[in-house]
Amino acid sequence: MKLSCPMPKLEFDIITLGHGSGGTLTNQLLTSGVFSVLSNEYLDEKHDGAILSMHGKMAFSSDSFVIAPIFFPGGNIGELAVNGTVNDLAMCGAIPQYLSLSFIIEEGLAVADFWEILIGIKSACAQAGVMVVTGDTKVVEKGKGDKIFINTAGVGMLHQNANISFRNIKPGDKIILSNQIATHGISIMSVREGLTFETDIVSDSVNLNHTVKKLLDAFGEKIHLLKDPTRGGVATVLNEIARDANVGIDINDQHIPVNEQVLGACELLGLDPLYVANEGVFMAFVDASIADEVVKMLQQDENGTFAACVGEVTSVHPKQVILNSRIGGKRVINMLVGEQLPRIC
Amino acid sequence: MKLSCPMPKLEFDIITLGHGSGGTLTNQLLTSGVFSVLSNEYLDEKHDGAILSMHGKMAFSSDSFVIAPIFFPGGNIGELAVNGTVNDLAMCGAIPQYLSLSFIIEEGLAVADFWEILIGIKSACAQAGVMVVTGDTKVVEKGKGDKIFINTAGVGMLHQNANISFRNIKPGDKIILSNQIATHGISIMSVREGLTFETDIVSDSVNLNHTVKKLLDAFGEKIHLLKDPTRGGVATVLNEIARDANVGIDINDQHIPVNEQVLGACELLGLDPLYVANEGVFMAFVDASIADEVVKMLQQDENGTFAACVGEVTSVHPKQVILNSRIGGKRVINMLVGEQLPRIC
Repeated sequence: MKLSCPMPKLEFDIITLGHGSGGTLTNQLLTSGVFSVLSNEYLDEKHDGAILSMHGKMAFSSDSFVIAPIFFPGGNIGELAVNGTVNDLAMCGAIPQYLSLSFIIEEGLAVADFWEILIGIKSACAQAGVMVVTGDTKVVEKGKGDKIFINTAGVGMLHQNANISFRNIKPGDKIILSNQIATHGISIMSVREGLTFETDIVSDSVNLNHTVKKLLDAFGEKIHLLKDPTRGGVATVLNEIARDANVGIDINDQHIPVNEQVLGACELLGLDPLYVANEGVFMAFVDASIADEVVKMLQQDENGTFAACVGEVTSVHPKQVILNSRIGGKRVINMLVGEQLPRIC
Repeated sequence: MKLSCPMPKLEFDIITLGHGSGGTLTNQLLTSGVFSVLSNEYLDEKHDGAILSMHGKMAFSSDSFVIAPIFFPGGNIGELAVNGTVNDLAMCGAIPQYLSLSFIIEEGLAVADFWEILIGIKSACAQAGVMVVTGDTKVVEKGKGDKIFINTAGVGMLHQNANISFRNIKPGDKIILSNQIATHGISIMSVREGLTFETDIVSDSVNLNHTVKKLLDAFGEKIHLLKDPTRGGVATVLNEIARDANVGIDINDQHIPVNEQVLGACELLGLDPLYVANEGVFMAFVDASIADEVVKMLQQDENGTFAACVGEVTSVHPKQVILNSRIGGKRVINMLVGEQLPRIC
């Protein structure tokens, strides 16, 4: 879903330091821009924070987004910032409800770009079913930022059936990937300065909360852990889980879903797709008894077409992640060392 | 209260792009730095978000901090980031409880500086009685940020007696300033590149939540509105309130508490203290019947030594803020136009 809203007539074409002053210009920008686009009963209170009613166990998460470029195939930094925090909440087993939205803008950003990002935020919020209820706008001098950085924090009540923790993982658990990996990272690389190559790969940035809710509705506590492999990719996240839960992890190369074009781009760039960032994929560690059903349910979901069971938890080699290759070889998969793709989210 | 913790031995002296990769270096930085300094049961779960129990009305707020310089007389960006969000929650009438903490670091930041900021965060959290429960670390290239930006979001349950809203303001309400104004802005100006001047003015950055709680314990719903005049200063915030509540505001120049040295610096720099940013001051709009008692209670609090009743709400000139001078003159006080002191918080 893409919304389209005409941009209001403003007296300025670019964001200046004055828009971060807290004074008249900040008020103009907020009133004619942010508040008009994102209006809701909480935000319209315009207080230092929003007052929400919460009863029970709640998840609370925050992420800053510094992606470059801010517009990329399949989305922009605004959508990404909403989906990123929505998905972090979903990975906790929560129903995302309310977001905060904080901008750090480099002076000189075109108001038209800011507007497009705001519309991206509005669209992503509508799709995920969340509201921006509070926020902040800062402006820094030219050369002290990079167009725009966005922080979102979010809260949401836990799903009543959810019990998500690395402590629940046990040997025999199956590991399911919800969709094809490495798409987001490769889509960003394809438009990075100096690296442009022909592709129609678009970012998989999407909200996963409705998909996760379906799984929790159906399988509850048998879903042991959910994790979205963003920065550092599948390999890094699996290593963190193996370390924290003190278990071994076996994965099968041939079962890992990757788009052919993405795989081709990875080969071209010398990247291992297991280390490339994802935005619309999650891993579920589930009780073996429900693994097939989970995969089937995911495959019927628009965000899980290529879902597959890719491995399982073992007690044999604690804290290690082992990749079994197509031809029977085994190799240890370590956490990402150094920086593969800076500013991918 | 200032904590002192020995810095752990790390294999690196400066933060590099790899520390934002999500991989091994990020894990090293978090494990030996952030998690060890800020450890608590929620943060130690290391999930994508924290799970909290909340029952009732809750406040939710977020601010990004881009102050330059990051170390200044009386504090650093870490303490400021904690106090800023703690105070925003307090201004909502809430008891601040849990914070998120998100860093955007420019590569090249000295680990020793990062450590000092972390210790500032830990000290400020201890003083306010809050915990960092979730967070995020991003690193951007040299020249695409400015040392470090910090976002904090926070949540806390509303005080049971609180009913804070601009809708509660009515003509006759008294306006109380909790302490001397313009101290933060002037302390930052005194160390800005090119502006250095001799002074021992230090920032008033402090947590106001305990002070606010005392007022709410004693006076409950008779406290109609609380606001901390940060960016844009007292003048801008009064104008926002007059506009949103559709009331007039009269303030008396001679009652506004300002330190002599701050006033001297303002004159030197050609600044009006009413527009200079504060970090440890709030304004209370209260029922006239309790105004004297509120001032007395504040004056006995360490954060309210110079508290004073500075004006009142009127129906006579809606949406206008009028300053009555010592010699009987009146002038309209408008919102800050343009940018007076960029990156003051």
